[in-house]
Amino acid sequence: MSVFPFEHPFLSGLAGDREIAALFSVEAEMAAMLAFEAGLAAAEGAEGVIPVGAAAEIENRIKAFQPDLEALNQATARDGVVVPDLVRQLRAAVGEPHARHVHFGATSQDVIDTGLALRLVSAFDIFGARLDALAVALAALTDRDGAIEVMAHTRMQAAIPVPASRKIESWRAPLLRHRAAMAGAREGMCVLHFGGAAGTLDKLGGKGGAVSRRLAIGLGLTALASARHSERDGFAAFASWLSLVTGTLGKMGQDIALAAQSEIGEIRLASGGGSSAMPHKVNPVGAELLVALARFNATLLAGMHQALVHENERSGAAWTLEWLLLPQMAVACGAALRTALSLVDTISFEGRSG
Amino acid sequence: MSVFPFEHPFLSGLAGDREIAALFSVEAEMAAMLAFEAGLAAAEGAEGVIPVGAAAEIENRIKAFQPDLEALNQATARDGVVVPDLVRQLRAAVGEPHARHVHFGATSQDVIDTGLALRLVSAFDIFGARLDALAVALAALTDRDGAIEVMAHTRMQAAIPVPASRKIESWRAPLLRHRAAMAGAREGMCVLHFGGAAGTLDKLGGKGGAVSRRLAIGLGLTALASARHSERDGFAAFASWLSLVTGTLGKMGQDIALAAQSEIGEIRLASGGGSSAMPHKVNPVGAELLVALARFNATLLAGMHQALVHENERSGAAWTLEWLLLPQMAVACGAALRTALSLVDTISFEGRSG
Amino acid sequence: MSVFPFEHPFLSGLAGDREIAALFSVEAEMAAMLAFEAGLAAAEGAEGVIPVGAAAEIENRIKAFQPDLEALNQATARDGVVVPDLVRQLRAAVGEPHARHVHFGATSQDVIDTGLALRLVSAFDIFGARLDALAVALAALTDRDGAIEVMAHTRMQAAIPVPASRKIESWRAPLLRHRAAMAGAREGMCVLHFGGAAGTLDKLGGKGGAVSRRLAIGLGLTALASARHSERDGFAAFASWLSLVTGTLGKMGQDIALAAQSEIGEIRLASGGGSSAMPHKVNPVGAELLVALARFNATLLAGMHQALVHENERSGAAWTLEWLLLPQMAVACGAALRTALSLVDTISFEGRSG
Amino acid sequence: MSVFPFEHPFLSGLAGDREIAALFSVEAEMAAMLAFEAGLAAAEGAEGVIPVGAAAEIENRIKAFQPDLEALNQATARDGVVVPDLVRQLRAAVGEPHARHVHFGATSQDVIDTGLALRLVSAFDIFGARLDALAVALAALTDRDGAIEVMAHTRMQAAIPVPASRKIESWRAPLLRHRAAMAGAREGMCVLHFGGAAGTLDKLGGKGGAVSRRLAIGLGLTALASARHSERDGFAAFASWLSLVTGTLGKMGQDIALAAQSEIGEIRLASGGGSSAMPHKVNPVGAELLVALARFNATLLAGMHQALVHENERSGAAWTLEWLLLPQMAVACGAALRTALSLVDTISFEGRSG
Repeated sequence: MSVFPFEHPFLSGLAGDREIAALFSVEAEMAAMLAFEAGLAAAEGAEGVIPVGAAAEIENRIKAFQPDLEALNQATARDGVVVPDLVRQLRAAVGEPHARHVHFGATSQDVIDTGLALRLVSAFDIFGARLDALAVALAALTDRDGAIEVMAHTRMQAAIPVPASRKIESWRAPLLRHRAAMAGAREGMCVLHFGGAAGTLDKLGGKGGAVSRRLAIGLGLTALASARHSERDGFAAFASWLSLVTGTLGKMGQDIALAAQSEIGEIRLASGGGSSAMPHKVNPVGAELLVALARFNATLLAGMHQALVHENERSGAAWTLEWLLLPQMAVACGAALRTALSLVDTISFEGRSG
Repeated sequence: MSVFPFEHPFLSGLAGDREIAALFSVEAEMAAMLAFEAGLAAAEGAEGVIPVGAAAEIENRIKAFQPDLEALNQATARDGVVVPDLVRQLRAAVGEPHARHVHFGATSQDVIDTGLALRLVSAFDIFGARLDALAVALAALTDRDGAIEVMAHTRMQAAIPVPASRKIESWRAPLLRHRAAMAGAREGMCVLHFGGAAGTLDKLGGKGGAVSRRLAIGLGLTALASARHSERDGFAAFASWLSLVTGTLGKMGQDIALAAQSEIGEIRLASGGGSSAMPHKVNPVGAELLVALARFNATLLAGMHQALVHENERSGAAWTLEWLLLPQMAVACGAALRTALSLVDTISFEGRSG
Repeated sequence: MSVFPFEHPFLSGLAGDREIAALFSVEAEMAAMLAFEAGLAAAEGAEGVIPVGAAAEIENRIKAFQPDLEALNQATARDGVVVPDLVRQLRAAVGEPHARHVHFGATSQDVIDTGLALRLVSAFDIFGARLDALAVALAALTDRDGAIEVMAHTRMQAAIPVPASRKIESWRAPLLRHRAAMAGAREGMCVLHFGGAAGTLDKLGGKGGAVSRRLAIGLGLTALASARHSERDGFAAFASWLSLVTGTLGKMGQDIALAAQSEIGEIRLASGGGSSAMPHKVNPVGAELLVALARFNATLLAGMHQALVHENERSGAAWTLEWLLLPQMAVACGAALRTALSLVDTISFEGRSG
Repeated sequence: MSVFPFEHPFLSGLAGDREIAALFSVEAEMAAMLAFEAGLAAAEGAEGVIPVGAAAEIENRIKAFQPDLEALNQATARDGVVVPDLVRQLRAAVGEPHARHVHFGATSQDVIDTGLALRLVSAFDIFGARLDALAVALAALTDRDGAIEVMAHTRMQAAIPVPASRKIESWRAPLLRHRAAMAGAREGMCVLHFGGAAGTLDKLGGKGGAVSRRLAIGLGLTALASARHSERDGFAAFASWLSLVTGTLGKMGQDIALAAQSEIGEIRLASGGGSSAMPHKVNPVGAELLVALARFNATLLAGMHQALVHENERSGAAWTLEWLLLPQMAVACGAALRTALSLVDTISFEGRSG
């Protein structure tokens, strides 16, 4: 037991995912937020919203900027969000006369939500690559073991024999659908959030659209016709996608654990977990972990959908709830894909019992 | 309090939806299951899997078939699914020599899951029409009230004034996205499930594919390359879609309830609920109901994703769990759309307080 | 598939519970609400809050009162709660000059929440009796089969042999704890809710406490020092208790389904479900249903705890959410207990495989 | 956004709790597991299960033991649990001839679950102290502001005036109930888990009970008549209790955020959060955080109840799921109590608007 297994010194090897977790590290988050602020200054300089010299100075200072994390921690406890103090620190680093041009026209949510979007570009790349690899591995498993006859089980009872390929297909086909649906999840998340205090870019005069488009291009994100601060459907749909992936892998894990039961033995695990009391056992640790991660994401998904009830122009309560849930769901998805890839490499079909 | 408000004599007017509930009635379910059995006989007859005469007799008998519901109830308690006894009753109705050709090569899950698919065709039509109507109604509201200035609220505090159109857009834009995404949800659900005992159509020799295609065309559903009995991602994705719709409407309801607070009064309700203790009050009943339905579907969604862990070729546990959850989620979605349509008709923006 | 399996013509035999569902029927609910109104009149008459003659007339008219359900349905859609129109109908039935003494000083929530409390007295009696009977049945199973050696399984692998009594004890011991904890759940629910418009019994002058105590005695409920309209912990704790019971039974069901697998056969089912495709199978329908009901209640529990965030003196949103969830959870608990009792009667331990 | 806000460099100040998080640190967890192994050796030595000299040597070596965390991380990824490799490392540290007496008769779950129990003793002390302090603070608030008249709001509309004491009481009364119920939650968690491979202490001959009692006394935990490895009701009930506490505080937070709305102003916040776009705002950050933490724990609670379906004698899947959920719920509860204590100090009732 530990507070957070995904980053825990000895549980992270089991349940964590270094690549995905790295995208949610403080370093990655800070880099993304600073990329937003630098890109904003550049776009506003180019559009004449702030002086070109201010933009250059801001971009330059941001390169060498080192945040005071302890101050950020204290300020976040007070402000509920890190951005006000980060902007204060940035302004102090930029100094006069350009300080007031930092973060011009933006609001905390622009920085936080766009900062997430920037990191999810990489996350989707990782998810996509792993889904592809897993589809390949399962196809290879079909090639090797697909003709072996195993017993189909319906309602926990032996039914009739089927080729192993039938079982593998029931794992692989949904993954291909999730891979295809990933584009939609990505489209909902990898967007520029830029709306200012109340979503109307009120301080940018008529230049809000132009700055938005320029900023989006600079950051490699999609520009939006209007800000979506309080429209959280992209977040909830992404969470659903994460849970679909882990759910499909949980079904695969459950199937493997059942087929690898001592009394059934239709699947053999080349390696498994040891026991402190019974050293002879080969426990289907990876398969069980897939079930646990599936149930974990299914559970947390409910909270991400509760957060759709995001009152007014910005809800501190619903937004904070997302922070508490979504990163974990992404790491759980990464961990499940990683675990599944390892697991598929270690299993072989042995043919039906009895 | 009642067991099931969606069908309750005096709560259904509030929280129910007659059109969607009708699709889940026993009559509709029975009709859909019988359509499967009749269509199956026809397709198998045409492909030479069963005698043409048997097919004709089965189709004919099904037209006049009246199930013994009490027997079905008792048998379902034993079998966990209604189909075995329904098939028994059907065979008795068809009589010799054709009885054994009824339900040939099919399994319970083919009947139940396809029976649902058939009814969801209508459900999606209703959802689509209501989403369209709501988008139109919100556009009309923007036309009429969009220029009125209201106060934006962030973190439950007054921020800066914005036009009402900004607020309405935050309700409407996600609905348009859900409308566009409906095609994907429909594609995942409105498919023919036909796999036989273990998903391999083992009894149909080489004619499984041909019968499938013919049956799918007859029923107006999509044929699949392989059966998906244990692949429940279409169901979980549909549940996510239902919860996205109710979540977006819950946000609208919460916004309206907040703007209609006595002390704020930025939105006026032309009509509302009365109180037994304080007859002068105008309660934002519809708005609150939208919040309740959003939280309801967000809650149940977790269970539909737990059901992704559908072990082996058919899980009685995970499948039954879907029966307990999905129909309610569909009715809740219908009720929310219906309520939102009424609510939008009764609200008017009054301009910002203070 | 049907909207609500617990009351469905052919699914209720499987997943429903007639006794518990009856407590949530319209008839039972109406009777309980009328008992509140009659008891209130009697208590207010005795304390001189309303004329004794009015009290007698109200009590008398209530005995013969037949509600207009269609009017209630329409009014509930408008008011969000049935009570305002029910009071209107009651006042019409009582007539002048006593009509205004009906429901005096009370509010809708007093009627609804107390009406539930009254019916839960019976529900707890049923739950308690079934828990007792199940404990007895499991003790008898231990007496008969407890010495049979079965294989313990840890992490889905055979571990070491244990007596069947060890496994049975892991089902029975938690049930005994739930039985003991039931008193706390009952104490939290079987209370009189009587607070008036805002929980202060403002219309009763100094006589609120006296009327409360008298009314509570009359109804067989516990009087409270202060109203709990917006304090929903009793409801959430009761929901937790319901889920603990179904969760424990779900573990028993899962164990039985695993031990009854064709390849293991450590538990034999004297009867089970039939299949439409494979008539030879004996499906562990009851065992799987227990798993489904456990996951169902675990899912819904989250919503009951979301409803703890019950804003201000009465939240239409949070209160309605409870209506949508709690009755179903109670029926699911009843159904699980009923199913478990049947299931235990049909199983026998066969000794360990291999 | 970060993977885990409760331990995050700048979010932990907001959403974390140092005291509770410390109990789930690797250091605390390792200390607790080693306390189990040392206590086990001592008890087994005293009862003659292992040589007295072995017990003394084990206890002695454990004092100076430094685990190789990297090795534990790798091994946990393989074994699914840290204990097998920890025992291996401990045995190496103890050396011959006593190595084999380390962990004698115990299993991984004994170490992990008891290790948690040991740390929860402190957690309950902290929760209890904070609940007491909060009850005192709310009583003081009643003393100071209780007579101020505020507007009761039902269904989001102004109802009738009530004294502030009525509102404060609706926050305080449930907390007193949770404080009283804490003993039950503690009783379910602060127990010794000691059952060996399959819960029967098979390796201890007749001395299992004696070792258990001695070990429990040594660790300050309750001894059990039989092991509860697969009976997770204590865990689920504890999770329910955590969610009841955060839910009650979420209601308080929601009430405060509503009463502190700019247009209502019945509650004044002496301090609040700043905004990066609108420096004049005083955001009710603490109040919103309480809502977020309530919804967080309500969400995760469902997963802890899913884990009740703990198959057979030990479920890797269900057990791992608890690890992923329960520590977070405990920290969220701690954070909510801490936040509530600060918040109550900063609010004052201003009297009713309008």
